[in-house]
Amino acid sequence: MNPVFAPRGNKAEIEEGAAFAPKFDADGLIAAMAIDSVTREPLMLAYMNEESLRRTLEIGEAVYWSRSRKEFWHKGATSGHVQKIVEIRTDCDQDALVLVVEQVGAGACHTGRGSCFYRRVVKGPDGAAALEFTGGGRTFDPGAVYGKA
Amino acid sequence: MNPVFAPRGNKAEIEEGAAFAPKFDADGLIAAMAIDSVTREPLMLAYMNEESLRRTLEIGEAVYWSRSRKEFWHKGATSGHVQKIVEIRTDCDQDALVLVVEQVGAGACHTGRGSCFYRRVVKGPDGAAALEFTGGGRTFDPGAVYGKA
Repeated sequence: MNPVFAPRGNKAEIEEGAAFAPKFDADGLIAAMAIDSVTREPLMLAYMNEESLRRTLEIGEAVYWSRSRKEFWHKGATSGHVQKIVEIRTDCDQDALVLVVEQVGAGACHTGRGSCFYRRVVKGPDGAAALEFTGGGRTFDPGAVYGKA
Repeated sequence: MNPVFAPRGNKAEIEEGAAFAPKFDADGLIAAMAIDSVTREPLMLAYMNEESLRRTLEIGEAVYWSRSRKEFWHKGATSGHVQKIVEIRTDCDQDALVLVVEQVGAGACHTGRGSCFYRRVVKGPDGAAALEFTGGGRTFDPGAVYGKA
C-alpha cells in the first residue's frame, strides 16, 4: 500500500505530534539531505515530491525528483550507486528531510566523488570568496560508470 | 568588503572550478544544512539569499533568510544560540550549502532541542507512515529562552 501522509495540523501537532505531515513547497517539493549512515557526512542534497517520497518509503531506496530533468530519479538506477534507506528524519516543521543512507558503490556524486560537498568556501587572494577542494578526490571514474566521456 | 560571488560559468567551471558561483533559485534562495562541527549531526535546514550568505561570510555566524517572516534571520540573535561558522561547503552544481558550525548554547531548534531532526519516519500500526521521537529530548526551555509560553 502506498504510504499516505497526514494532513497538516496545527503548530503543536506538526512539531510535537506523531503524524507524518510533510510540507511540500509551492513547486510540490521538499528538500532531502542524504547523509552516510556510518560516517554521518553529508552526501548530497536533492528534492522529492510527494510521489517520490512515497516510492522511497516503499522500496527502501532514495528516489528523488529531478528539478532539471523534471522526472523521477531513482538514485543509482544508472550507476548502481543506490542509497539504501537506514532512517528518514524530518524536522520540527516537517518541511525538510534527512535521509540516513547506506551508500552502495563508490560514491554519491556524479563527478566521481564520495560526496557532492567536496569544496569549501575560503577567502581568495583578492578578498572575494573562492573554493578550495577538500581531501576527498575521485573514488570512481564517472565516464566508466555513466558511459560518457 | 562584501564578498562578491562569481558569475555562473559552464558545467566544468561550476563543478571543477575554484570560483564560488552559488546558484539561487527562482525565489533567490539557496538551501543550507547546518551540521555540528563535532558530532557531524544535522542540526537544521534553512535558506539563504545572496545578502544573507554575504553577511554569514562577513560575520562568521549563520544568517539565514526566513521564508515565513520574509526577513533576515541571524540565528541566535534572540536565543543567544548563534552558530559560529567553522566551514562552509558547497556541492557539485553549487546550489546547496553545508554549514559546519559550532552551535553555541543548548541547541539549534526553537522547540528546545539540540537538533530540529528529532523524529524519524516509521511504519505506523495501520501501515501508514508515522513519526517516532528519537533519543534527544529537550536541552533547554524554549519559554525561558524566547520569553513566551
